[in-house]
Amino acid sequence: MATITKVSPLAPAAFPDLPVIDGVTFATMAAGVKYQGRTDVMLALLAPGTTVAGVFTKSSTRAAPVLDCQAKLGGPSDGAAAILVNSGNANAFTGKGGVAAVEAITAAVAQTCGVEQERVFTSSTGVIGEPLPAERITAVLDRLHRDQNPDQIEAAAQAIMTTDTFPKGAMAQVEIDGKTVSIAGIAKGSGMIAPDMATMLVYIFTDAVASQNALQAMVTRHADRTFNSITVDSDTSTSDTLLVAATGASGVSIDGNAAFEVALHGVMQDLAHQVVKDGEGATKFVEINVTGATTDADAKTHAMAIANSPLIKTAIAGEDPNWGRVVMAVGKSGAPADRDLLSIRFGDIEVATKGFVSPGYAEADAAAHMKGTDIRIGVDLGMGTGASTVWTCDLTHGYIEINADYRS
Amino acid sequence: MATITKVSPLAPAAFPDLPVIDGVTFATMAAGVKYQGRTDVMLALLAPGTTVAGVFTKSSTRAAPVLDCQAKLGGPSDGAAAILVNSGNANAFTGKGGVAAVEAITAAVAQTCGVEQERVFTSSTGVIGEPLPAERITAVLDRLHRDQNPDQIEAAAQAIMTTDTFPKGAMAQVEIDGKTVSIAGIAKGSGMIAPDMATMLVYIFTDAVASQNALQAMVTRHADRTFNSITVDSDTSTSDTLLVAATGASGVSIDGNAAFEVALHGVMQDLAHQVVKDGEGATKFVEINVTGATTDADAKTHAMAIANSPLIKTAIAGEDPNWGRVVMAVGKSGAPADRDLLSIRFGDIEVATKGFVSPGYAEADAAAHMKGTDIRIGVDLGMGTGASTVWTCDLTHGYIEINADYRS
Repeated sequence: MATITKVSPLAPAAFPDLPVIDGVTFATMAAGVKYQGRTDVMLALLAPGTTVAGVFTKSSTRAAPVLDCQAKLGGPSDGAAAILVNSGNANAFTGKGGVAAVEAITAAVAQTCGVEQERVFTSSTGVIGEPLPAERITAVLDRLHRDQNPDQIEAAAQAIMTTDTFPKGAMAQVEIDGKTVSIAGIAKGSGMIAPDMATMLVYIFTDAVASQNALQAMVTRHADRTFNSITVDSDTSTSDTLLVAATGASGVSIDGNAAFEVALHGVMQDLAHQVVKDGEGATKFVEINVTGATTDADAKTHAMAIANSPLIKTAIAGEDPNWGRVVMAVGKSGAPADRDLLSIRFGDIEVATKGFVSPGYAEADAAAHMKGTDIRIGVDLGMGTGASTVWTCDLTHGYIEINADYRS
Repeated sequence: MATITKVSPLAPAAFPDLPVIDGVTFATMAAGVKYQGRTDVMLALLAPGTTVAGVFTKSSTRAAPVLDCQAKLGGPSDGAAAILVNSGNANAFTGKGGVAAVEAITAAVAQTCGVEQERVFTSSTGVIGEPLPAERITAVLDRLHRDQNPDQIEAAAQAIMTTDTFPKGAMAQVEIDGKTVSIAGIAKGSGMIAPDMATMLVYIFTDAVASQNALQAMVTRHADRTFNSITVDSDTSTSDTLLVAATGASGVSIDGNAAFEVALHGVMQDLAHQVVKDGEGATKFVEINVTGATTDADAKTHAMAIANSPLIKTAIAGEDPNWGRVVMAVGKSGAPADRDLLSIRFGDIEVATKGFVSPGYAEADAAAHMKGTDIRIGVDLGMGTGASTVWTCDLTHGYIEINADYRS
């Protein structure tokens, strides 16, 4: 693994102050799965009755723990539950041994913590294709069980990092019927980020009361406009996992509650943006806003073509308002576009209007916008009402440095 | 434009010795379209009766000269014809002014050279979105007409370069019925290279006798497995143009002739490989060979997902046989794959067999292959008989350097 010496320039000033979620406890350990001198296993225990919803990578080569989680979602939710995550090894492309490792770990967690094995969810993140040394994880389970603490979510965020340069957390609280419902989430991810799913690993906890069906529907809906609307390098992980757990400890039901849904969306978007801001080598955070497309899906196709274009991402790194490359990306996306209806903005500067450079456009104005760290590119197709917003980062020497010797 | 100081390390030792094609003459000029101190306009005149076939970008924002060429293909072919190409400005996203520039240039060429305007084909390559100063081109037409010479194809290859670090040429000769038929071609392109079309600009000339229909069918067939099977950065130009002109001067008809088709394929593949070898920042030439897919189209989808993956391209730059990233790319491609049937090779080294690391695989062996400049990645899906071969290059600091300040 390349030595990561610098925290992303786009990182938040500090890890946020996250509320304790009643019904959730955490512990972390340095199990030596691969890394030395840092924590690499996180165990979260969830109170009896916690409902768990999830969204996963659509990769056809997805890892054993992902397949195991997918099989378990929607099962009985009366007992306690557990989430165990290790970093350093993705347990992906590891054949029958990988399946056996998941079986061994989930059985051991079930036995140690008194949780049904059907309620033990695991994720693994790190190198693909190397056998996961499950015994290093099971060897620390007693200690992980003993150390459980409701106040350790930041430590959990740190234990699941791989090439991340900062731990990622987000929170929201909403008042419903005079009571406070809290949401706290953590995420990891900085490379191999693209839909679907965008983020490597995300765990969100709430003390809301939610049926599994309603929670799953809400999570799926918002994953599409948050974690599935970001890209760092167009590459899709074999391990991407988002789990949302509702312990019910607040006593407040949020099925169909709009305020809760807005709050959850906010937490998911915040974590999604943090993943982009930790994009490998990123120096700019980029929002791509496409409007006027024939459909929302077409708008997203255009937006992702722009967000994934190496020529656009390098132009942003070079602070060059190179709108010709935006035209190129729209043209290649495959979704409908009419060159002579197309308008393009950098920040608030309209650079091209209906297929031609805007009257009075001065490149110095757009260039000034490009010097910031928050870049906005707007494209209006002029054809319909379809719209989409996606987020990405620039493509810099840092990306090459990190990825040309990840395993060395 | 960034200063290109170094020729690609993958460049051929010298421009090849191309045969004169009877019925084709060339001239070049420094018209100052954008660049200073170099030639930037090329005019080729084609003998009466020359048939012209073409393949073009599928971009929905394609440039005015491309639309003009597409409209003219398949028209009457009894008179003389002309191909005029400028570098420095793509005349793309230039609105009605762009169309007018094409009209002005083709009319002037027709008048100066005594060619029907319907037989004048133009291409423009360079920056997008800036009005093309057509008058700088028409101002040098008299001289371009006067200087026509059959032996100037290398100068033509130089005049059409933009970020290219070397001019690209290829040739073949075949004996048919005791007579020699010659093919000579030139190409330019190093960035914004992806299907469809892969190559920016390609012009191939032959003295064969060919009907337009037969020539077009042959060119389309082979474009798919040559220029549409290469990628540098997944970005698709608004200007990509391939024109093949058959003057008939040899008196040998090649309609349905297999030997000619093989020779033409060879010239097209050679030029396609040279474009990849001049990929911006390239230090490795990479062949991706996918077999065992459900269909040829699925094989190509997998091959292109591998060839376009930034994580794989940076691993190749780092000489890292990171086959886990190949698994990832196959998984994300969207085409059918079964993790447990997948086998992967680097060079002749089988690194993964049926979903798991190969018995006896030693990373040092694969690492030795990665140190070369010709890298071969083989993937067998184990599902069917679909196959595809595509070519790409690695992703290096050089790509970032060239593209982060192209316009500065």
